Amino acid sequence: MRRFIVIGHRAATSADFSLNDLSGSTGRLDVLLRCINSSFFLSNDMRRDVELFLVLQGQPDPPKTLHLVGSELRYLNPDERSTAALLRNALIKGEKGEYGKSTPGIYIYRKSFEDVLAECAGHSKIIYLKEDGKDIRDAIRDAGLDGETTFVLGDDKDLTDEEEQILEKFNPLTVSLGPKILHSDHCIIVVQNEVDRIH
Amino acid sequence: MRRFIVIGHRAATSADFSLNDLSGSTGRLDVLLRCINSSFFLSNDMRRDVELFLVLQGQPDPPKTLHLVGSELRYLNPDERSTAALLRNALIKGEKGEYGKSTPGIYIYRKSFEDVLAECAGHSKIIYLKEDGKDIRDAIRDAGLDGETTFVLGDDKDLTDEEEQILEKFNPLTVSLGPKILHSDHCIIVVQNEVDRIH
Repeated sequence: MRRFIVIGHRAATSADFSLNDLSGSTGRLDVLLRCINSSFFLSNDMRRDVELFLVLQGQPDPPKTLHLVGSELRYLNPDERSTAALLRNALIKGEKGEYGKSTPGIYIYRKSFEDVLAECAGHSKIIYLKEDGKDIRDAIRDAGLDGETTFVLGDDKDLTDEEEQILEKFNPLTVSLGPKILHSDHCIIVVQNEVDRIH
Repeated sequence: MRRFIVIGHRAATSADFSLNDLSGSTGRLDVLLRCINSSFFLSNDMRRDVELFLVLQGQPDPPKTLHLVGSELRYLNPDERSTAALLRNALIKGEKGEYGKSTPGIYIYRKSFEDVLAECAGHSKIIYLKEDGKDIRDAIRDAGLDGETTFVLGDDKDLTDEEEQILEKFNPLTVSLGPKILHSDHCIIVVQNEVDRIH
């Protein structure tokens, strides 16, 4: 299983936003929408062996975590707007305190970054995607990365010092993706291609 | 200069579409919007050395080509909706027969796929991205790809036989990107990473 954890530093934790202003009114939930696209879509297929955790830390009620499970996902389309509508449905359930499954493959929980890390680290190597890390191609050669792996990254903001301290408890391997610093959704694409090539 | 040509097989050639239904009402212009994002965005920066040609072949008035120039682009944001609004402005100009610059870095022309290829091939190696091609890492090792290159790909549909015949006139090198078949915008990300690593 390949997992990604993306921290939405200011991402909305209520459903009170407009589908017509996803980059303005949602605490940059639009970044996370694009991470969903990168995590699951193949040409005429979906990545059933991927799970994605979106840790929402914005107002009014943080933290909440959306958990997307590739093997169960339905009704997901590649465009931002329809994906946002699915997440809004999950956030509506969260507002009512109805944690758990929202639509097939999309769950909402009252979980923090540390909670999600603890859940993944039990059965997975933790990889921190950061520009000063070891190049992923060297990391794959030296450390494998072909088994259970969880890749951690920020949204449009880097991890804070406090978040890095939490992450350090889980002994991450710090890995970079090349000479340019990329958007989060683009990082996920590069990781997918590198890991696809192992098999 | 790194160039991408993406064929929008059914992409709208009029501005008569809704920003609220980009994947339904536009002939899958949403695919091309994501290709724009992949072509130009870096974290806190833009790729000024990239140009993108979107060949629109849908109704009511094909062909039209949108040409996006990284070194001139302004007002471009990563989300689909605001990018669609910029393209719609260009299409409105095209409907009036006012070909040329729409907003900074976005031009609209009455050009076909073959016109665009002829324009690029004069000073650039043509690379056809197709799943049965030579692996890009081998192609980079054997053929370089570090100078002027133009990468050609389809939207959510492969090139037709007729389009492939046009492309063949320009002696393309056929290149693949790994073991999985990817969405067009994801292909662009993988290409960018590979070419970034050459330098």
